[in-house]
Amino acid sequence: MVHRPPIKALAFDVFGTVVDWRSGIARDAAPILARLGRTDIDPHAFADGWRKRYQPALEEVRSGRRPFVILDTLHREALEDLLRHHNIDPAALDGATLTDLTHAWHRLEPWPDSVEGLTRLKTRYPIVTLSNGNIALMLEMVRRAGLPWDAILGAEVSRVYKPLPEAYLATARMLAIEPSELCLVAAHHSDLAAARAAGLQTAYVDRPHEYGGRPAPDADAAQDWEFGVDSLTRLADELCR
Amino acid sequence: MVHRPPIKALAFDVFGTVVDWRSGIARDAAPILARLGRTDIDPHAFADGWRKRYQPALEEVRSGRRPFVILDTLHREALEDLLRHHNIDPAALDGATLTDLTHAWHRLEPWPDSVEGLTRLKTRYPIVTLSNGNIALMLEMVRRAGLPWDAILGAEVSRVYKPLPEAYLATARMLAIEPSELCLVAAHHSDLAAARAAGLQTAYVDRPHEYGGRPAPDADAAQDWEFGVDSLTRLADELCR
Repeated sequence: MVHRPPIKALAFDVFGTVVDWRSGIARDAAPILARLGRTDIDPHAFADGWRKRYQPALEEVRSGRRPFVILDTLHREALEDLLRHHNIDPAALDGATLTDLTHAWHRLEPWPDSVEGLTRLKTRYPIVTLSNGNIALMLEMVRRAGLPWDAILGAEVSRVYKPLPEAYLATARMLAIEPSELCLVAAHHSDLAAARAAGLQTAYVDRPHEYGGRPAPDADAAQDWEFGVDSLTRLADELCR
Repeated sequence: MVHRPPIKALAFDVFGTVVDWRSGIARDAAPILARLGRTDIDPHAFADGWRKRYQPALEEVRSGRRPFVILDTLHREALEDLLRHHNIDPAALDGATLTDLTHAWHRLEPWPDSVEGLTRLKTRYPIVTLSNGNIALMLEMVRRAGLPWDAILGAEVSRVYKPLPEAYLATARMLAIEPSELCLVAAHHSDLAAARAAGLQTAYVDRPHEYGGRPAPDADAAQDWEFGVDSLTRLADELCR
């Protein structure tokens, strides 16, 4: 059996792992699409398109070709691009509406087990975010959803986007612990693989509804993670006994 | 009457405003000084000397002469300097003891009204730290004292030490609000004056026991702040009615 150092803190991916982005984005996009007379566009497919669309922009920042900008900015650009893809001129919506729709990412709801699971895990471990989301986004989400984070860390604090190794290493450093004493909790194998490569422990949370029941795009990156659960309450069962 | 924009978030100074640094440092220094046979050194005076001693080091970083380092590092250097000042070779203590004593700053206790006041203020406003303390320091303090911050911001996040204007401006920017929509809550006139100069609103909390009953070193910097209270529960009375 491999020796595992004691875990001193838990860092969480947020979009998909703690909150349900697809339902929340579809909910907020639907009335806008209806107002534009575009009921032919499925709001859930619109959410999928939005989520997929900011990855190339993230890569521009990760590669260093573009200076760091917060995720709200990348979300806004991706939204305008997505609208144009659907032959909608972003100018057909006023600026306040575009900003408000961009902030749909601030208003996502937690999965049913998230608040209880985090609250129980927090009794034993510091719990922090390790998300690509920016601070204002995470803060509004926290205020609405009651997520009991001890601290909001992640991209805007470290100025590095996952899955670059420095995103994980900077988080351990800010917590003043070794990478091997930090456990990333995520629903995405690709995120966990990068965390493991950087020396972190890993906990996989299965979220079969993240993509509306379709398989995750990174299903083939699955490994034998240190922990594997189907909810954050089950993770609390494993880690807090 | 001057127009005040609505306050959208509260940012808090921590050392002296929310927690009692002098008693906490004296409590943890006393047994170490006793072990060294130095009961002639008053632990409270030791605390005062430590607090005063890291200001020049902060200034080195603020001036840009020294790259950013976290407060734990500056606290450790100031401790070693203070020990030498008392003719104690820091090597007389093992490294673990020096580290543990440095971390006395992580273990400070809140003033009696802090947790209740913050909890009430949080029902209405996002509450964040705007302290020169680093993240691991704030996090350990949070976990021990139950301070209900929505987010830990401040020096390590913005990479700037107060009272440089950018410390206040970066905090507003990370919260995605205007400086005038952010209110700094602090027991120190010098901190509030710098926040006001950067465009923030200001709330003064009187903490007459911060210096053991002696006047504050910046008492002559007093101004007519937007709010003036003698506890965080009184601030909640003012802001949450």
